[in-house]
Amino acid sequence: MTGQVRIGILISGRGSNMVALVEAMQDGRVPNAQVAVVISDQLQAAGLAAARERGIETLPIERDGRKRVDHDREVVAALKERGVNLVCLAGYMRVLSSEFIAAFPNRILNIHPSLLPSFPGLDAQRQALAHGAKISGCTVHFVDETLDGGPIIAQRAVPVSEDDTVETLSARILAQEHDLYAEAVASLVKDDRRE
Amino acid sequence: MTGQVRIGILISGRGSNMVALVEAMQDGRVPNAQVAVVISDQLQAAGLAAARERGIETLPIERDGRKRVDHDREVVAALKERGVNLVCLAGYMRVLSSEFIAAFPNRILNIHPSLLPSFPGLDAQRQALAHGAKISGCTVHFVDETLDGGPIIAQRAVPVSEDDTVETLSARILAQEHDLYAEAVASLVKDDRRE
Repeated sequence: MTGQVRIGILISGRGSNMVALVEAMQDGRVPNAQVAVVISDQLQAAGLAAARERGIETLPIERDGRKRVDHDREVVAALKERGVNLVCLAGYMRVLSSEFIAAFPNRILNIHPSLLPSFPGLDAQRQALAHGAKISGCTVHFVDETLDGGPIIAQRAVPVSEDDTVETLSARILAQEHDLYAEAVASLVKDDRRE
Repeated sequence: MTGQVRIGILISGRGSNMVALVEAMQDGRVPNAQVAVVISDQLQAAGLAAARERGIETLPIERDGRKRVDHDREVVAALKERGVNLVCLAGYMRVLSSEFIAAFPNRILNIHPSLLPSFPGLDAQRQALAHGAKISGCTVHFVDETLDGGPIIAQRAVPVSEDDTVETLSARILAQEHDLYAEAVASLVKDDRRE
């Protein structure tokens, strides 16, 4: 792949990893890539305003009352129209259909708040605390048909404290997520340029 | 519990974690604890000589041709005779019977070469490489009836390199195991003294 990498970011909430990615591109930490659009499946997602404030086009595509495939088809079309060739999930709470995954082969990333394969699925930080893990962390991985089981791109370890709550552990992991996601995207984009 | 903690270590091979524990006690890094005996279920285990060289009593109790419960009963009796009140597995390749586990409630430790619950069971380092993990590590945990699923005492993260083999990754993790096991035993023994 040559030329600029155009990134589409999908969110459902405040999109703090989206903001971290946008700022990393705008600071030049991910050379040769730009965020083309931020799409939310929730009309009220706080991240939409945060993206607009940073000069990024936003597009709410409501999921409520729609079948997954129909909704996904519209999201994929919106991404393709804007020339997106790398999709980053950032707290996107809808599982992707296989059609969506097939539309961007090996070009959809997710970040998960654990050291996968430990603690996949929802509430990873709560799972880590319940299990008594002393180390957790975060993982950037390709999205495939499995639940948080796609190929791992990058991981970072985070210590768990005796007195951690879900909130304190989540905050400590999130700070590393912001860094790791930008780093993983930068390394992928760099690999694109080598090809 | 008061008084000296008397540790029995079970091995099947070279027992490098056993040697690390023995040296940690002999160096005074685990105050108020001593290794009372090293037991191997393999007559030829290289660790037996290594323990004797360090002045530790050794006892081979062969497993071959014996039922698990009969073999375990003999091992437990040998430990009890020597006043052992903490059992450390160090590359011990036989799964413990529930009778053995019941004989030392919450007083049997194991060290496993991954960040559990990722990669339990055999060949954890090979599993980590096959999965494409970017971070692995080691875990000291209590032994219960589950496979490497007992409560976690301590963990340490170890990076995985692009060009790692099972051997290079195992060596990097093992160096941390040696440190972590002694640290975990020291913290347990300290807690004993507080009670």
